Order: sequence, then structure tokens, then C-alpha cells
Amino acid sequence: MPNPLDKIKAQVKQLSAYTLNAPECRVKINQNENPYDMPAEIKAEVLERLASRPWSRYPTFVPVDLLVTMAKFSSWRADGILAGNGSNELIQALLTVSVGPGTKVLISEPTFTLYRLLIEVLGGEVISLPLTPDLKYDTALIKHTLEEKEIDLVIICSPNNPTGGVIKDKDLIEILENFSGLVVLDEAYHEFSKHTVVPLLKQFDNLIVLRTFSKAMAMAGLRVGYLLSHPDLAREIAKAKLPYNLNFFSLTAAIVTMEKFYLLSPIIDNLIAERERLFTALSEIPGLEPIPSEANFILTKTSITPSELMANLQAKDILARDVSRYPMLKNYVRFSVGTEEENNELVKTLQEIFIKT
Amino acid sequence: MPNPLDKIKAQVKQLSAYTLNAPECRVKINQNENPYDMPAEIKAEVLERLASRPWSRYPTFVPVDLLVTMAKFSSWRADGILAGNGSNELIQALLTVSVGPGTKVLISEPTFTLYRLLIEVLGGEVISLPLTPDLKYDTALIKHTLEEKEIDLVIICSPNNPTGGVIKDKDLIEILENFSGLVVLDEAYHEFSKHTVVPLLKQFDNLIVLRTFSKAMAMAGLRVGYLLSHPDLAREIAKAKLPYNLNFFSLTAAIVTMEKFYLLSPIIDNLIAERERLFTALSEIPGLEPIPSEANFILTKTSITPSELMANLQAKDILARDVSRYPMLKNYVRFSVGTEEENNELVKTLQEIFIKT
Repeated sequence: MPNPLDKIKAQVKQLSAYTLNAPECRVKINQNENPYDMPAEIKAEVLERLASRPWSRYPTFVPVDLLVTMAKFSSWRADGILAGNGSNELIQALLTVSVGPGTKVLISEPTFTLYRLLIEVLGGEVISLPLTPDLKYDTALIKHTLEEKEIDLVIICSPNNPTGGVIKDKDLIEILENFSGLVVLDEAYHEFSKHTVVPLLKQFDNLIVLRTFSKAMAMAGLRVGYLLSHPDLAREIAKAKLPYNLNFFSLTAAIVTMEKFYLLSPIIDNLIAERERLFTALSEIPGLEPIPSEANFILTKTSITPSELMANLQAKDILARDVSRYPMLKNYVRFSVGTEEENNELVKTLQEIFIKT
Repeated sequence: MPNPLDKIKAQVKQLSAYTLNAPECRVKINQNENPYDMPAEIKAEVLERLASRPWSRYPTFVPVDLLVTMAKFSSWRADGILAGNGSNELIQALLTVSVGPGTKVLISEPTFTLYRLLIEVLGGEVISLPLTPDLKYDTALIKHTLEEKEIDLVIICSPNNPTGGVIKDKDLIEILENFSGLVVLDEAYHEFSKHTVVPLLKQFDNLIVLRTFSKAMAMAGLRVGYLLSHPDLAREIAKAKLPYNLNFFSLTAAIVTMEKFYLLSPIIDNLIAERERLFTALSEIPGLEPIPSEANFILTKTSITPSELMANLQAKDILARDVSRYPMLKNYVRFSVGTEEENNELVKTLQEIFIKT
């Protein structure tokens, strides 16, 4: 009998799957989630709306209410917005319509691993640039490479996961002005940097912005993201997005969360303050070298091996992220910013580990 | 300034988007939804589970609880099951790992339009066969074409949307035995035919079965589907599925619905009985020629133009589906089976329209 795997593309078979090794721990600081649950008032309002709507009916073909709310919330036009199951689905859609064999996509690594995975599934070529030695975007190198090589697409994650660094508007504008391909700016963590590049959309037709409800917006369990671009681009990208992709539960939760954002806003401010407090505390532990971050996590160099540090933390029921397999990050771990109590517990545990060592 | 649309693939730009023209009507029989809402006991149990879980946390990386429940529910192994946002997402994942320029995919048309759309987005070639003149699968032609042309993949929707016809197990087995490529059997409507091909999975490594919660399972608003195959195939297809694709709201609703399926089962039996009653009533209207169906809809030939019939129905607040743009279906419309009252109203309205005409 012939092997049905013969019909799977070679480039897919040679890929290893995106996996996550995540034991259950009491303090979970491995996925950059908002450590606080969604405010109770928002949960109650969402559940009430879900109860009163028939579940057996499809969502509307275009989720107009959601897009209009997103437009108001982000100050961009509704016909230039697409919503999806996390920004992941929109990254996938946009790469599907733009990347194939022969397409060159420039990314700086280390960054969010899904970009490379999807580019490779689609048969495109990843042009990978390193960050600077202090793990910032090497914008001179990016600009130089864009001029030298025939790049079709650039993806920039800012604040970058897992480093927390950002690209400056000045540099982004220079790239947008001098590059004829598409520039994707993933601002999954932008709320923690109090900055957005959405205003640049008016000026640059080749800019695509990605956002998510999975981090600051406290909706990781519900999977909602959105893409903002010129309406002509959005219309083409929508062709690779499945009809009725977003369920009405998640869609309703996103609408209510934007309507009542004033309830989430102080939680985000608190997380920013906690990040600064955690950064200072980590800096004071001998053996740790945290990297300044504008996101809700802190990348930290460690004098003991990341695997040993992870094991020591897990022994105390703390789950951080070992990022040592990322390029340039052999000696690094990443801590998401938790609640005040969780951050205190992390610092105390790290002090014990590094003083003992 | 260069046009950013230059970076969109030509085959995408020439595609027209999947659209649906759906005005609001009181009687909605255009999307083959379950006309009854999810039973109240199931809704209450789901909402209780949603309230008690933090929304800010990601779903588990592999939705083990869901897959184990699906395995038990379908009598297939959990490691050979993938869950997605509607079966659409799984069709997309499986085509992404198997279809590219040069790939030939055989479908019989008219059928579910998403297959062709996705194959074309991926740059594959659609080999389209007609149905028989009485709108059944032309299995002799399918078998002959598989032998003659170098086909990589066959997709069969059974019961077929929008015709309601099925492929017999005998014919499917003959195809599976003599064809070395992948055979996808989309059984989105299988509950209404009281039949499944899942038992064939044990015997045939090249069979892939698709199922959905959007029709009989009364969860169109929640977008859940699943794919069943040999675990080796499932593992490859999973590489094109996004991590955390399914939100925990929909996932929880699917689990509870399977656990309490005994509450839905009599509703499905009622819809099957209503389908037979509606078929008889439509047969008796001069000017209509309904096609026997094993799904929850009835394709019907009409002596007045479909657009005129649609307009007449909409004037009475009834929204059916005009399928006249599908191949072979120039004079056809499709009615989803509604509640007893809705079916009575449809028949009464059709009698008025066709007696007046």
C-alpha cells in the first residue's frame, strides 16, 4: 500500500511542529498572559449576552459590530480592519496571500517563532538578521539589507518578543519610505509601551499593523486579534481568511472589553509599574542581567544554565520560559510580569537560588 | 510610490472573495443551521464553566479534554483527531500541507464552494467533474478519472452540499483501494443520514474524515469542527494548524454538547422527519421538483427563476438560498429544513407563489 504521507509537501515533513513544554505550576509566568482575570463586570456582561443569543446560528458574514468597535478603539477605519482567532490567524492569512516559493521575508531574530514557521510552511525564504549585541533592533543592518537584497516583506515585532525592545518611529518611517514591499508591525505588546504605530497607516499604504487581545486585554483564552491596513490590502488578505472564522462568544467578549476598557486600563498601568519594580529587583540579584523591556515580560541573562534555573524555579512551583534555544539567547530565560505577589515570590526564590549557587 | 498590492500573489488578486448576500428575515433557511437553539440545560452548564475559569489564560497547548471527548464520541483514537474553528479551518490546514503549484485535486461540482477557493489560493489545480444528470455522484467517472489523470487528492462531501446526495460505502471503498492519494470525506451533514465512514479509518490510512458542530450539533455560532485520520497524517496536518487555534469558550461548549448529546439527539430525529415531510409537500407543488436529500436541506428545481422565487419568499420574510450560480443548478434553490412551523409557513408561501404564477 502506498504511503499517504507521500502526498504531504516535503517542506512540511521536514518541519518540526511548534510545541510547548509546559508543566502545571502555581505561578505561571511563561506565556506573557495578563496575570489578572478579566474584570468581573465584563465577564458578567459577556455571559448575559451569550445566554440571550441562539448558539445554532452562524455569526454575521462580516462581524460589523466588532469591526466598528475596533475602528473606534484603535482610531482606524473599519474597512481596513480584519478580525481573527488571535493575531496568529491574521499573520497566517497575510503570509498566505503574499509568500510562496521565491518570496523573501526579512525578520530579525530572536523574535516570535511563528513567523519563521509559517514562512517555511508556505515555501518562502527567511532572510534572518541578528539583533545588536545588546539585543536591540539593528535598524542600520535592516535598512542596508533591504537595499541590497530583493526583499518582499519585512516583519517587525515591537515591542519584540522575547527581548522587549522596540523599533523607533523614526527608523520605521525611514524603512517605510525607502522600501517598496510590505512592512508588518506586530504590536502585540504595545499597550505596555504606551505607544502605537497606527497613526502611520494614514501615511503609508504598505504598512500592516497586528494587534491581539491575548496579552494586555486579558483574553488569551478567547483568541481574538486584528489586523489594520489600507482597505485595498485588507480586502486581499481577507481572501485567505476563512468565512465565519470568529465565533460569536469571542467576538462578544472583545466588544464588551473594548466598551469597558476603563476597567482594564488601571490593571495595565499596574503591570507596567510592576515591570519596572521587577526589573530593578532582578538587576540587584548577582548572576542575573535583565534586559530593559517595554512589554509585560523581562528577558534575563543567567549565570547558571537556563535549564538548571528552570528546574530550580519549578521546584518552587514557578513556571518561567526557557528561551535558550532562540538564536543569541543561549544563557537567557524570560519572566512574564505577574501579580505583585507573584513578582515578590519570583524575586525571593531567585535570591535564594543565586545566593545558594 | 509603489503599489503595495504588487506584493500580493497574482492568483489571489484574480480570485473573487467568498461572499454571502443575506438580508435579515424572520424565517432563516439559507445556511443549513439547526433551527432550534442549543438546549437550555447545555447552555447553562457551559456558561457556568466559562464563569469559573480565568479568561486571561491561554487554552492548553493540545486540547486534551476535547480530543478525548471527541474520540469517545466518534469511536476513533484521540491522537488521530485535530480540532479547529469549524471544519473550514481543518480543510485549510490539510490543503496547506498537501496542495501547491502542480497539485491536482479532484472534486465533483456542484459542491461546497470553499474547496475550490482554497485550492486556488494555494495555487493547486482543480479537476472538476460534473454530477450525474440527476445530481448524484458519478462514481464511475470519478474512478475513471483517478485512473487516467495523476490526481493527488480527492474531496467528497457526503451528504453533498447543496444537493443532499451521498456516496455509497461500496464506491468509497473501491476508490480508497485503488487510489494512492489522499481521500477527504467531508461528513458535515452525516447525522442527518444516520451514517458515518469513520469505521473505514481503521482500514484505510489515506482516508481523512471531516466533521462539524455547525449543523446538527447546533453550534454554528461557536465554530468547532474536527478532522479524523491516521495519527501520522494528523501530525503533519497539525503543522499548518495554528497553536491555540480553538478558544476555550467554544471548546467547552463542544465538550458539554457531546457529554449531553442525548438532549440533542431527539431534535435531530425530528429534523429528519421534518425533511421527509417537507420533501413530500414540495413534491406536490406544481413547478417545484425537489431532489431527495440525506442532509438537513432540500435542493429544489423551480419553474420560475430562482431570483424571482427568492424575491417572492423574501417579501414574506423567508430567506432561502439561491444556488443558481453553482454549476448545473441554474434553476435551483435550496431550502434548509426549519422548525415544523417554519416548514409549514414555507410550504404555504410556496403554494401561494406557484398557484398565482
